[in-house]
Amino acid sequence: MSQLQRLTISEQQCQGRTLDLLPEQVHYLRRVLRLAPGSRFIAQDGQGQQWLATLGDKLDQAELEEVQRGGSAIAPFILIAALPKGSGFDAVVRQATEIGVTDIYPVLSQRTLLNPSDSRVSRWQRIAQEASEQSERLTIPEIHPPVSFPALLQQPALASQQYLCVARGEYPHLLTQLQKDLSAAAAVAIAIGPEGGWTPEEIAEAAVKGYQPVSLGSAILRAVTASIVALAIVAAVREPYR
Amino acid sequence: MSQLQRLTISEQQCQGRTLDLLPEQVHYLRRVLRLAPGSRFIAQDGQGQQWLATLGDKLDQAELEEVQRGGSAIAPFILIAALPKGSGFDAVVRQATEIGVTDIYPVLSQRTLLNPSDSRVSRWQRIAQEASEQSERLTIPEIHPPVSFPALLQQPALASQQYLCVARGEYPHLLTQLQKDLSAAAAVAIAIGPEGGWTPEEIAEAAVKGYQPVSLGSAILRAVTASIVALAIVAAVREPYR
Repeated sequence: MSQLQRLTISEQQCQGRTLDLLPEQVHYLRRVLRLAPGSRFIAQDGQGQQWLATLGDKLDQAELEEVQRGGSAIAPFILIAALPKGSGFDAVVRQATEIGVTDIYPVLSQRTLLNPSDSRVSRWQRIAQEASEQSERLTIPEIHPPVSFPALLQQPALASQQYLCVARGEYPHLLTQLQKDLSAAAAVAIAIGPEGGWTPEEIAEAAVKGYQPVSLGSAILRAVTASIVALAIVAAVREPYR
Repeated sequence: MSQLQRLTISEQQCQGRTLDLLPEQVHYLRRVLRLAPGSRFIAQDGQGQQWLATLGDKLDQAELEEVQRGGSAIAPFILIAALPKGSGFDAVVRQATEIGVTDIYPVLSQRTLLNPSDSRVSRWQRIAQEASEQSERLTIPEIHPPVSFPALLQQPALASQQYLCVARGEYPHLLTQLQKDLSAAAAVAIAIGPEGGWTPEEIAEAAVKGYQPVSLGSAILRAVTASIVALAIVAAVREPYR
């Protein structure tokens, strides 16, 4: 089925085996994907469920011919990332989605001044949805509302294994630490600082809350690149458990 | 010295301990970095050598107070990447430079139509230079002229360990393979295909030339993301040898 186009729907649109398409979805299927009556596509709910759908004659409905469950539950794979200046976070959301994160927490650190508008959060959620469809992912990562780093640390632990990436410190490399720690299908959260790095107080407070400080190596990476590098390493180590 | 700004110079500009600055460098130091006479910065030749420079009174010369050699030679770390459509390669060059590659070979695969102009190659070299300065790298990666993939394979082997990343195949994961293969400071070349993937003929021909086909995992990545993911994994495994 990998060659079929994908469309994210909500379960409320399904009545038994009939899918009621929204006007913008009809437009997308017809004008963008140029599908005709009888064409097939994959409908997915972003929660792990997917259907093989056949477009109806009037193009505003589709029949769900077949239902597939998204397999076993995916262990949380969480990116906590300080918001960079400008639009750099768009690329982080897109690439993190491709790599397979389940949750993204944009955080405001002591060195982040930006407080993003609600419209940017919806934009990131839309980017995550598009990237999920392109990557044939069954689930769309959830973009959480931006929160200050201290407030995030006050919440219950996000994962059983939590890492804080610190530049210029003498910490163990993320790869070494992961290969020492990782148990099958463990939930992992990884936090990436802003351009200027985490402050010493942030590192200390995170350590108290169970975040292991780790290094991404001797290279000096921009924050956007650091996110992708860290996620790539986590995904590679987790791969046998996917 | 990490807080000092960096400037890439050529050795021809040095006369003994005096550095003759080019007009655009004077502009950059004075107008962009706002340095005054007596200010210090790091001059680097992009080949691994760096100097602590003190700007002269007339701002068109600097005195090289101290010379640092760039340490031991860096083992080649080569990215071979099929050119994506649009400007996606700019991000690949920037992020690959941050991660630490020494050479980038843009290639035209059977599924790449784009034949880039000379001006794009100079643009990539400029991006690599800027990214090197930002990342405090002593060496600037060399951007080689675009070449067809078969022509590249006709050249002598680029590295002792060569990998071809293949999507949707049943190959060992790059991380697993690297940890099996990698000897200290070995030269590594990694090839990333275009959006549609390498063709079966390309995979077969590369295998004949010593490229081990590897997987980047079950996620479907865009070509730009795949480059960064692969380089992040190689860099993490090489880190102890840097």
